[in-house]
Amino acid sequence: MNPSPEKTVPQIGIIMGSQSDLKVMDAAADILQQLGIPYEITIVSAHRTPHRMVEYAENARKKGLKVIIAGAGGAAHLPGMVAALTTLPVIGVPVKSSNSIDGWDSILSILQMPTGVPVATVALNGAANAGLLAAQILGTANAVITDALEKYRTTQREKVMRSVEQLHRGDIDVD
Amino acid sequence: MNPSPEKTVPQIGIIMGSQSDLKVMDAAADILQQLGIPYEITIVSAHRTPHRMVEYAENARKKGLKVIIAGAGGAAHLPGMVAALTTLPVIGVPVKSSNSIDGWDSILSILQMPTGVPVATVALNGAANAGLLAAQILGTANAVITDALEKYRTTQREKVMRSVEQLHRGDIDVD
Amino acid sequence: MNPSPEKTVPQIGIIMGSQSDLKVMDAAADILQQLGIPYEITIVSAHRTPHRMVEYAENARKKGLKVIIAGAGGAAHLPGMVAALTTLPVIGVPVKSSNSIDGWDSILSILQMPTGVPVATVALNGAANAGLLAAQILGTANAVITDALEKYRTTQREKVMRSVEQLHRGDIDVD
Amino acid sequence: MNPSPEKTVPQIGIIMGSQSDLKVMDAAADILQQLGIPYEITIVSAHRTPHRMVEYAENARKKGLKVIIAGAGGAAHLPGMVAALTTLPVIGVPVKSSNSIDGWDSILSILQMPTGVPVATVALNGAANAGLLAAQILGTANAVITDALEKYRTTQREKVMRSVEQLHRGDIDVD
Amino acid sequence: MNPSPEKTVPQIGIIMGSQSDLKVMDAAADILQQLGIPYEITIVSAHRTPHRMVEYAENARKKGLKVIIAGAGGAAHLPGMVAALTTLPVIGVPVKSSNSIDGWDSILSILQMPTGVPVATVALNGAANAGLLAAQILGTANAVITDALEKYRTTQREKVMRSVEQLHRGDIDVD
Amino acid sequence: MNPSPEKTVPQIGIIMGSQSDLKVMDAAADILQQLGIPYEITIVSAHRTPHRMVEYAENARKKGLKVIIAGAGGAAHLPGMVAALTTLPVIGVPVKSSNSIDGWDSILSILQMPTGVPVATVALNGAANAGLLAAQILGTANAVITDALEKYRTTQREKVMRSVEQLHRGDIDVD
Amino acid sequence: MNPSPEKTVPQIGIIMGSQSDLKVMDAAADILQQLGIPYEITIVSAHRTPHRMVEYAENARKKGLKVIIAGAGGAAHLPGMVAALTTLPVIGVPVKSSNSIDGWDSILSILQMPTGVPVATVALNGAANAGLLAAQILGTANAVITDALEKYRTTQREKVMRSVEQLHRGDIDVD
Amino acid sequence: MNPSPEKTVPQIGIIMGSQSDLKVMDAAADILQQLGIPYEITIVSAHRTPHRMVEYAENARKKGLKVIIAGAGGAAHLPGMVAALTTLPVIGVPVKSSNSIDGWDSILSILQMPTGVPVATVALNGAANAGLLAAQILGTANAVITDALEKYRTTQREKVMRSVEQLHRGDIDVD
Repeated sequence: MNPSPEKTVPQIGIIMGSQSDLKVMDAAADILQQLGIPYEITIVSAHRTPHRMVEYAENARKKGLKVIIAGAGGAAHLPGMVAALTTLPVIGVPVKSSNSIDGWDSILSILQMPTGVPVATVALNGAANAGLLAAQILGTANAVITDALEKYRTTQREKVMRSVEQLHRGDIDVD
Repeated sequence: MNPSPEKTVPQIGIIMGSQSDLKVMDAAADILQQLGIPYEITIVSAHRTPHRMVEYAENARKKGLKVIIAGAGGAAHLPGMVAALTTLPVIGVPVKSSNSIDGWDSILSILQMPTGVPVATVALNGAANAGLLAAQILGTANAVITDALEKYRTTQREKVMRSVEQLHRGDIDVD
Repeated sequence: MNPSPEKTVPQIGIIMGSQSDLKVMDAAADILQQLGIPYEITIVSAHRTPHRMVEYAENARKKGLKVIIAGAGGAAHLPGMVAALTTLPVIGVPVKSSNSIDGWDSILSILQMPTGVPVATVALNGAANAGLLAAQILGTANAVITDALEKYRTTQREKVMRSVEQLHRGDIDVD
Repeated sequence: MNPSPEKTVPQIGIIMGSQSDLKVMDAAADILQQLGIPYEITIVSAHRTPHRMVEYAENARKKGLKVIIAGAGGAAHLPGMVAALTTLPVIGVPVKSSNSIDGWDSILSILQMPTGVPVATVALNGAANAGLLAAQILGTANAVITDALEKYRTTQREKVMRSVEQLHRGDIDVD
Repeated sequence: MNPSPEKTVPQIGIIMGSQSDLKVMDAAADILQQLGIPYEITIVSAHRTPHRMVEYAENARKKGLKVIIAGAGGAAHLPGMVAALTTLPVIGVPVKSSNSIDGWDSILSILQMPTGVPVATVALNGAANAGLLAAQILGTANAVITDALEKYRTTQREKVMRSVEQLHRGDIDVD
Repeated sequence: MNPSPEKTVPQIGIIMGSQSDLKVMDAAADILQQLGIPYEITIVSAHRTPHRMVEYAENARKKGLKVIIAGAGGAAHLPGMVAALTTLPVIGVPVKSSNSIDGWDSILSILQMPTGVPVATVALNGAANAGLLAAQILGTANAVITDALEKYRTTQREKVMRSVEQLHRGDIDVD
Repeated sequence: MNPSPEKTVPQIGIIMGSQSDLKVMDAAADILQQLGIPYEITIVSAHRTPHRMVEYAENARKKGLKVIIAGAGGAAHLPGMVAALTTLPVIGVPVKSSNSIDGWDSILSILQMPTGVPVATVALNGAANAGLLAAQILGTANAVITDALEKYRTTQREKVMRSVEQLHRGDIDVD
Repeated sequence: MNPSPEKTVPQIGIIMGSQSDLKVMDAAADILQQLGIPYEITIVSAHRTPHRMVEYAENARKKGLKVIIAGAGGAAHLPGMVAALTTLPVIGVPVKSSNSIDGWDSILSILQMPTGVPVATVALNGAANAGLLAAQILGTANAVITDALEKYRTTQREKVMRSVEQLHRGDIDVD
């Protein structure tokens, strides 16, 4: 697990429906850590702790959160229900949990929200991208974060270029 | 629309996420009417009226409801969230609404509930069967309802037999 | 396997299409055992023992069963056929058996019943939820079972809260 | 509707789950009529007339049927259940009925039979092919039918060749 | 079409792959108009005007845009490619265009982005939600927009409550 | 592999698109062996040996075959093409080969034949059922085979009943 | 229908499984006409005229064809079988015919070819793109065709730009 | 990895979105090597190196490439975007990468291109066929390559015939 986040007011809340989602959702925390954005991370089950969910969603803005990242699998109601209870942007991460049908249930339960209550859905198990999207959202009003994101992009590009060089030198073993 | 249900304490609560679900969900009311089971019917939106939903689910048992029938389309969270907030049996009706992807989203969002919080899911647009299932549940402790259900079955069987006779007489026009 | 159920009249019949479904369906028995509800468990194959199936379904109410839980995989006809032969509520458990196409065949064969013959379908491999749903159905006329279900819910909620604490203390190892 | 079949002992039994399947299933009767094979056609609902179904399947061989063609939609149990109750070959026709999810439920409920009880499944709404397949089965022991089938194939081929000529002459109007 | 947006610097850029997407994407403009958020709207085709796309994406931040809403159908590359060319948040709207396979191609092409380049995907044809999500993103740093969003939610809730009243009065005609 | 079939004229031809299908298709040979029906088994690739396929299909009836069982995976053209080249009944076995998309491609390529050319499709990897279906087809004109099939059914039923007894005695270990 | 192609040796052969595919496949002819590439167009049914198909495929190169465009629906075997019988490039067009399951069967039957026999598959009903792809293939050795293709691209781009201008002027009416 | 290709001007460019696609895409290089066709192979990420992609696609024809083979997984935009930037034929290989939903996302993102910009799509992970298709394209103007392809076909056919002989001799062990 990621070491506990920096001791500043968290700007991003990462929540997930079950402890078993942590191995997927931890990637969101990793990205925020890399970008220096304070976050909090906890478990909020729509189905087993519905009142905790209501409270979490309704207090989120008051306590300073600016974006919520919510991951869940199967009939994944957490992201959409949290989105119904706050006007903060909510990013949904469909988790391919053991009780999921190849991930289709998680994806459709999160993506297909009715008009009025959007969830910003990312790819199946795409928690890292959820972290980046949260940073991009903060970056609309924060040039430091935008700079960090630009650097992240540069690093990605450079990684590809190093692979290109390795491949051209014949340094990649396929089998 | 069905005439308002009989003026006795409703035993079944029929709820749906949106007024547009009524043309599907009305079939549940029809069946209960036929079987003489008092019910109530209303709109409860998980995403647009989440507090109304919590209240409805938590008061259901107190006010005498024995079964809740909940229909919704798209990212259909209503049945599962209500099931999380009561220990009454909840029957989920996936509705193929206009914003649904051929009904797959509605089905998977309702069916694939995590361990601990079941939803008794019926077929896509299967509101009539939801009504019958609710009656069967009441029938586990009510012989009058069981008798009514047996009669319903007999009627169904007789209808098939009448079709058989028509077909044998050549009285059915295919085109 | 669960030890044989208590020596009282069973209220729930758990049946499955094949011995290989037992490793999934046993979870239904587990739940009923925890809740103190007497049940019976056996194998009834719609396709290999059709007369046994007819007999089982038609005798179920007479011998005191109140709910039938039926699990099957592939072209899963057992739950629907049993539902056609009794007016007891039938809970269907789609089993992702080895001959199943990712579970889609089991789900659709059980869920998509025609008007007149409902099956209360739960999630793929959702036998534990089938047990809980059976208990909820009995609970509509039995306060002791309702209490047991409320306690089960409390336990679930407390388990989540312990995970929350562990996570906050940094006691969960992701990898 | 096809005129009632010739007054000889029927060799093929065409059954369907509901009167509404007739507009699809009639094509099987049409083909048999064309090929001069005596058949009977009736409605047998697995879910609304299960005893009629058992009786039909178990008497089929005795009364001289050699092949059963069974069509059904949604959770289509008729073909598989009939196949479980006879050792005659059973041809299953998945019908895309109004309560079907794009036909997937009908197809999977009929196709995915467990080892021991095959159903010879044809294409969605493929009743004409079911008739032809039934004829091919009889043709394994009947040279007259085989000849009729060869002629049918020749006619098909000639129809294609006439289209080819029309197209080459520019006689087909696309819009 | 919406009247041309207010003469202030646009904060949201709405783009779409083809003129035929306009009837879906116009709902995003509608919402922004209602919320008083200045936007621009244009056509940018990833496949027919790739250089225009590169230029649009790379200039977006410079010219003051804070969020891009991109809609496309079929093999929908526009949202993901724009996301690759800017660090602004990009909201993707899968459009069920005439050349789409029930929308699955649009959804998967937009949602399943690789790590490093997120697209905030909304429901199929969910352009109104894309507008709301864009507003929520601006709302993380703009209390006026947050207030407008809270009012929008209240209006939604009140609309549901009016439907509830109509239904209770028997004022809704189902057929 | 099955020992080479009995030295009589084969009545069933088992063919498959590739050697790798043998581990699935061998189950068809097994069943025919058990039922005492002479068969031949070979590899015929629609795509790599198209002329061999044409020849095989066109000679099949002449050399005494009565049914052809054809298995293939991926874009599985063998069963349908063979069916186009003979009026013998052709049973298609969709094989979930390594190059298959969860078996969907194999199933749809075999099942969805156009009017005029049926393929009797069995379940994914359902080669044993293909063998049984072939026997049932021969059984329409051969009482010995019908008897053998009835015995097979009895054996199946008895196997289920033994499982039932084991389960009731608590002799089955779930884990 | 397109007027008969120019009186030069055809370089592209457009074939389709059935006359009903013509309304889709005609778009391929249209494109080739526009680009000035001589083609021939005819009907070749894999299942109803298999020998015609073998002959067509095997003579194609001899008579001067350089690319074959083959369209078919349902269990679409024509493109793959033709590809098995020639080493010319074969472009497959999945047609969403009336007997198709939303086009999935056509797509998978054409796309999922085994190693050794490729089919260049284009989008569902993508006959225009098949024509363009055929031209691109000829363009690898023909600068005139390449120029024509570049002009086609320019025209496409200009069409988009005209839509852009219309939209900016407010000249597009959405409703 | 394949040894670096022969020191002549490459005619085929093989590109892929990520180093992890190499274990699939290497099969394309293998085939070209076998057929003696000079190729180049490199990594070009649509999302992480979009400008490299534009440059690669736009220079491809100038530097002598005749066909581009592009493989990618998930939201696979590389083949379609490259096709938008060149009039060379582009062959798309859907890769079933770890972030893919059973390959459906890769397939649909590559296949479902809009009119005007075709991608010649091959089977999931079908890189070997991409290599063969590229050779077939060159073969339209190069008899040496056509001969090599005919030899490849002969070898394939002979391999099948050797399997046939092994099977007839009983030399294949199924288990």
